[in-house]
Amino acid sequence: MRQLKNLSEEEALRRLAGVPLGRIVFTRQALPAVRPVNHIVVDGNVIIRSSQGTILSTEVAPAGAVVAFEADELDGAERLGWSVIITGMARLVTDPREIERFQARLHPWVAGTMDQVIRIRPEIVTGFELVPAANAPA
Amino acid sequence: MRQLKNLSEEEALRRLAGVPLGRIVFTRQALPAVRPVNHIVVDGNVIIRSSQGTILSTEVAPAGAVVAFEADELDGAERLGWSVIITGMARLVTDPREIERFQARLHPWVAGTMDQVIRIRPEIVTGFELVPAANAPA
Repeated sequence: MRQLKNLSEEEALRRLAGVPLGRIVFTRQALPAVRPVNHIVVDGNVIIRSSQGTILSTEVAPAGAVVAFEADELDGAERLGWSVIITGMARLVTDPREIERFQARLHPWVAGTMDQVIRIRPEIVTGFELVPAANAPA
Repeated sequence: MRQLKNLSEEEALRRLAGVPLGRIVFTRQALPAVRPVNHIVVDGNVIIRSSQGTILSTEVAPAGAVVAFEADELDGAERLGWSVIITGMARLVTDPREIERFQARLHPWVAGTMDQVIRIRPEIVTGFELVPAANAPA
């Protein structure tokens, strides 16, 4: 069995920055929705790319909607690992220099145009690590 | 670069059943929320466990709220893999025989009581696989 150990905000963001992929969680027509997406962390913000015409590009980010973003490294065999969840407003990046800078660092996995760059500013950062439970009494 | 290949509903549920861990996505006080959780698939439904007193146990499942559940095996180095997302109503399992049956197959990773069993009945099942993009013209 495992115990949950909370990660500090700093450590949570560090781990989030260390993996290439997370899952953006948003509301679509009042229903919960989720998409896996690759990301980078720049200046404490999560940066992702999206195609034009997607819900993320046309509804979520233009409205400045609150989204969650989750990343983890959890090992089903060992039952060890960590998970980080941030919550904050998503916004389209509109500054052409910023767009260029982020696009140079963040390469879409999937063929096709992904013109839109979205920045998520974390307002809530939580994370946990699974550690072996102490079985022996202290 | 990769292309997205859609998975059939049957294939998506098969892959979902083949991994121990997914992420349940729900709405909490009108905000998107997500939690990693281990799961099994039984009779086409996703079964998870939850502790008493959590939002999932006290609000989401008792209300029969619509949730999403995502699982994936995505390789950041190779940029290959798949993701499956189901959407459907979450409900607490109340039949003692069903609870016993599910608890025998679904073991919490984390120490502590996880008395509540939650069933998600998929109404929408989507999945994709990342496959190498065809570079050469046909």
